[in-house]
Amino acid sequence: MSGLNIKRLDSQLADFKAQMDKLLAWEAVSDEKVNNIVNEILTRVRNEGDSAVVEFTNRFDNTQAQSMADLEMSQERLQQALDNLPQDQRNALETAAERVRSYHERQKGESWQYTEADGTMLGQKVTPMDRVGLYVPGGKAAYPSSVIMNAMPAKVAGVEEIIMVVPTPGGEVNELVLAAACLSGVDRVFCVGGAQAVAALAYGTETVPQVDKIVGPGNIFVATAKRAVFGAVGIDMIAGPSEILVVCDGLTDPDWVAMDLFSQAEHDEDAQPILVTPDAEFIDKVEASIEKLLPTMERKEIIETSLRLRAALIKVTDMEEAIEVSNRIAPEHLELSVEDPEALLPKIRHAGAIFMGRFTAEALGDYCAGPNHVLPTSGTARFSSPLGVYDFQKRSSLIMFSDEGASEMGKVASVLARGESLTAHARSAEYRIKD
Amino acid sequence: MSGLNIKRLDSQLADFKAQMDKLLAWEAVSDEKVNNIVNEILTRVRNEGDSAVVEFTNRFDNTQAQSMADLEMSQERLQQALDNLPQDQRNALETAAERVRSYHERQKGESWQYTEADGTMLGQKVTPMDRVGLYVPGGKAAYPSSVIMNAMPAKVAGVEEIIMVVPTPGGEVNELVLAAACLSGVDRVFCVGGAQAVAALAYGTETVPQVDKIVGPGNIFVATAKRAVFGAVGIDMIAGPSEILVVCDGLTDPDWVAMDLFSQAEHDEDAQPILVTPDAEFIDKVEASIEKLLPTMERKEIIETSLRLRAALIKVTDMEEAIEVSNRIAPEHLELSVEDPEALLPKIRHAGAIFMGRFTAEALGDYCAGPNHVLPTSGTARFSSPLGVYDFQKRSSLIMFSDEGASEMGKVASVLARGESLTAHARSAEYRIKD
Repeated sequence: MSGLNIKRLDSQLADFKAQMDKLLAWEAVSDEKVNNIVNEILTRVRNEGDSAVVEFTNRFDNTQAQSMADLEMSQERLQQALDNLPQDQRNALETAAERVRSYHERQKGESWQYTEADGTMLGQKVTPMDRVGLYVPGGKAAYPSSVIMNAMPAKVAGVEEIIMVVPTPGGEVNELVLAAACLSGVDRVFCVGGAQAVAALAYGTETVPQVDKIVGPGNIFVATAKRAVFGAVGIDMIAGPSEILVVCDGLTDPDWVAMDLFSQAEHDEDAQPILVTPDAEFIDKVEASIEKLLPTMERKEIIETSLRLRAALIKVTDMEEAIEVSNRIAPEHLELSVEDPEALLPKIRHAGAIFMGRFTAEALGDYCAGPNHVLPTSGTARFSSPLGVYDFQKRSSLIMFSDEGASEMGKVASVLARGESLTAHARSAEYRIKD
Repeated sequence: MSGLNIKRLDSQLADFKAQMDKLLAWEAVSDEKVNNIVNEILTRVRNEGDSAVVEFTNRFDNTQAQSMADLEMSQERLQQALDNLPQDQRNALETAAERVRSYHERQKGESWQYTEADGTMLGQKVTPMDRVGLYVPGGKAAYPSSVIMNAMPAKVAGVEEIIMVVPTPGGEVNELVLAAACLSGVDRVFCVGGAQAVAALAYGTETVPQVDKIVGPGNIFVATAKRAVFGAVGIDMIAGPSEILVVCDGLTDPDWVAMDLFSQAEHDEDAQPILVTPDAEFIDKVEASIEKLLPTMERKEIIETSLRLRAALIKVTDMEEAIEVSNRIAPEHLELSVEDPEALLPKIRHAGAIFMGRFTAEALGDYCAGPNHVLPTSGTARFSSPLGVYDFQKRSSLIMFSDEGASEMGKVASVLARGESLTAHARSAEYRIKD
């Protein structure tokens, strides 16, 4: 019935597993040419500092900066952007920031310690990073909500200094992004982007301070640069295209489900919207809603491409199988559009964020629910988590042996160290054994 | 006075900062040739599976395997290794494993949720990864303690399946390593190493199941392969050479301090042992102990090279400055060899593990104190943590809006989404606004 030809899968068909593998296959193209360009930029910024950053910025962003000072934006400028916002936008941004802060406060890790019978103390000290870099894309993908989502967890963690970099091609700035930076407590802003911005943050220059970790999304040059500097600094996950999986019992308004699928599809031609339901008729209904609503959408070309290339409508036997499919996908966004979502929750093993119940549109989580919208994509929820306060804290182990404890454990360490032929280890431990 | 010519630094000298930068500069050589070899191995294992793994293993490890089955080690074989251990080694290994388990139990993250006034529920669900790969080096760097330190946090996290890979060049196995694998609850063992082992774990083959994360140390081929597969699977930090920083008030037995420095130096010619003290005479005393003890050490060549190349004895003005130096270094191992280490603790911002008091030899932490011995090296304690249970758990955000909450927040999301020109987001939220 559909002119869009959205893929349909059925768990009862023999090739279902193979079809699923094919549907979910995704790989960022790693390009030798991009690697070489990025490596040259990294090396030059590392060796030459500010002057290289200015040169690359003028070249790639068509600016006419004389020095790094020309590329730094003042706190007054951020405040001005916030003050000039229309009142409804300012209220919405403040509400969102406040809810995000409040949720993230609960993620804060605390130090702990305990003392054993012989007086030995063991523990873990939790501290924030000193300084964090936040990459914000320029142009159409510049989202104020992303500034809040990336900066706020660092702020809550207690990071002292947040350095934002954002390209301003041709000098064009995004007022909403600046306002969000002001609200989120960003400390310094440089109008620099690309691999040169990543290099400046990772290595430091005369003007840009070296950071401990770089977070935030970017294009292939930014992603490649982040992968290259990983180890010199921390980085967040390298994000793939956005995805949504709607698990529905067939009783949600199909227009709602169609629009929820659109809300990921409109991000990107490669975005992946998927519906899973045991109700075959509901698949037809949602497809009808898609056909009906698509022509009314501002970003219909992007949505249509995403639907054609990467979407799927999956028929399963029952809700149990729907959850199995969900665990196979390990989706970035999982909507449980069902009557009793809490009943399904214990069986869900992998998902970035779980949107429970028919009222919980994924879009609410993108802006103002409270939890972070930076989530693991492309199945990486199998091993990674939403961006959070824990990404800006680190732990130090604490060990304080009593003389009694050191003596007892010295004997154990001595045996094991000698078993590994590490005799300096053994003798160091043996010094602490009492006669 | 020293034939070793160990570097001496003094915080009062004008070039102290530059000297420190020079001392701490370290970079793993990234080699184009290694990259190409690794990329070929990764591609072939990914495309050809078992047969490529067998081929590379036979070639690099001088084995004569016919199939992957020949390269898998049975649980009975692991149990046999444990049963055949000398009693003192078995007792020591069991004590160490038990203490490590007990400490790590305290790191376990728990799910949480809370309900807002309008009935909206927010939370975070914590789940273990399904399956983890553990790389264990073969030959001289094969340490049973590392098996315990890498496997136990995964086990405590609730990971269902731990797959260990270990090269057995020429068929040679390390009985202590097998015994430690048995004790730590490793589920399957493959006698495979190098980039081919990393590839098998990252992509899966007919026989080796795909894992969600790969942890454990390895040579430059293993490290390069891990960096390359990062994203397809999770990886732990890529470790540099080991280091120890001893901060001492000058009142610890200089032999103890010398031996503690040796205990890192003996790992590796590139290992970095550093002493910081406000007591100039104590530096002479420790150097005298070093001269005296070095000839008695089994691994004296390695220790001597490490001392010559990378060690430093640093004189500071006072303990406050000693802690500043420590924070600059962000050491993997920090010994606070002082009377009242707890008084210094609040000022320490970056360290992998902190060994407090004169009795707490770093070597005790390597084996049996309880905390993990896999720690951030080369200053990466600025942004990373000891290996822990948290490395094998991941989080999913939970959002369940009440109809009331969805209506209110729908209005906020609508304003922000329209500000970002994401109208599908806006309309999806607006569907949930009550009339």
